Amino acid sequence: MRSRLLLEYDGSRFAGWGRQPRARTVQAEVERALSVLLRLDAVRVTVAGRTDAGVHAWGQVASYAGKAAPLAGLNALLPPDVVALSCAVEEPGFDARRDATSRAYCYRVLARSAPSALERGRVLHWPHRIDTALLEQCAARLVGTHDFTAFTPTDSEHVRFERDVYASYWRRCTPDTLEFWIEADAFMRHMNRVLVGTMLEVAGGRRAPAAFAALLEGGPRHEAGPTAPARGLYLAGVGYGERVLSA
Amino acid sequence: MRSRLLLEYDGSRFAGWGRQPRARTVQAEVERALSVLLRLDAVRVTVAGRTDAGVHAWGQVASYAGKAAPLAGLNALLPPDVVALSCAVEEPGFDARRDATSRAYCYRVLARSAPSALERGRVLHWPHRIDTALLEQCAARLVGTHDFTAFTPTDSEHVRFERDVYASYWRRCTPDTLEFWIEADAFMRHMNRVLVGTMLEVAGGRRAPAAFAALLEGGPRHEAGPTAPARGLYLAGVGYGERVLSA
Repeated sequence: MRSRLLLEYDGSRFAGWGRQPRARTVQAEVERALSVLLRLDAVRVTVAGRTDAGVHAWGQVASYAGKAAPLAGLNALLPPDVVALSCAVEEPGFDARRDATSRAYCYRVLARSAPSALERGRVLHWPHRIDTALLEQCAARLVGTHDFTAFTPTDSEHVRFERDVYASYWRRCTPDTLEFWIEADAFMRHMNRVLVGTMLEVAGGRRAPAAFAALLEGGPRHEAGPTAPARGLYLAGVGYGERVLSA
Repeated sequence: MRSRLLLEYDGSRFAGWGRQPRARTVQAEVERALSVLLRLDAVRVTVAGRTDAGVHAWGQVASYAGKAAPLAGLNALLPPDVVALSCAVEEPGFDARRDATSRAYCYRVLARSAPSALERGRVLHWPHRIDTALLEQCAARLVGTHDFTAFTPTDSEHVRFERDVYASYWRRCTPDTLEFWIEADAFMRHMNRVLVGTMLEVAGGRRAPAAFAALLEGGPRHEAGPTAPARGLYLAGVGYGERVLSA
């Protein structure tokens, strides 16, 4: 029997999703809680989007072999920075990673001079020049199929560097908060963070929009901008057949 | 010379605004930072709305005798859970508390079965029945001048129990998050939290809307509902002549 788990987590105090020796990871916490609750020796979960240290999730999806866990019991066993939002039996053979048809991420930027007391660790504080029209121009340019070699570390283990971007836009969420939303078939390591780091260069007048567009033909990593911090990034949701974002 | 300070803070790890011996308070942190920065022996700040332990602020206003502090320097001296958003010289005699004509608060409720990993300590998790039409009915009833004796502790030091409510409404912020917004000339101790605790009883079918309305004529404290937890409450802003909320 296969089950599907929907998870929210605060990535601040995790060394990321994936199990690592001697590090606190979301995967280890979830597997431990499921093992206890389902009285199984070692539950192994497969995840739709492996997130790095400090990256948050509103809608991570994981699958495992076993029956569905009762939510209240599961949340009582999970630490407060990981919450199960739903858990249900799936069709035989369901695999959260292989069956996912898209992933949607959001990157949050606080564009004002003062940092935030209430959102620290959950947003990138950006007290620099930011031209939102240029941000929107960059985001619109991402839609379609592109070679994102320039946006992932050179030592990457990826074999295919093209990704299909279904939606990509910036929106102003509060007077000071800007959000970058993107949905694609899949993402490479650091891809969203390098995209944001590079778009912020354009928005600050330090890179021409055309130079940003040129990177989408597949350039070397060093031609793109810096990797934006993990704390602004959220795995917003995972699509299985249907898209996550309507735009 | 008088200056005005606009502050955001995360109330989670504070024993409230007001100075207390052997407790971490927002007032003590702000006064310490200002004293260091302005090289004064002991700066004393006056605040528009004294908040209790655990209550947050997006727009607290404080005043003090002294010149305006440079923001970057002030924020470097403040702990990360208190941020100065602006600091400017005011007219002579300006007093953040006495001159305030209104205060606006927001109370955030997460209405779903699972708690939140990302908003823990910043929202009331309410996995119970909640009829939003009844909430709206209660909120609308609050507008105007009422006697709020039933909504503040019996041992209250207040002398006047009438308050003028200028705006009061609930709005759905995300599919799961409800916010109660209220602006009045002033609030008594615990008033917003008892209002929310009582409205949630109405929304859960445990109290009739008419019984809620009757409390606004001035009833004893024990006839109102429980005090909702501090963690959902935010001092949203302070009005000086102009209103904070447009509704």
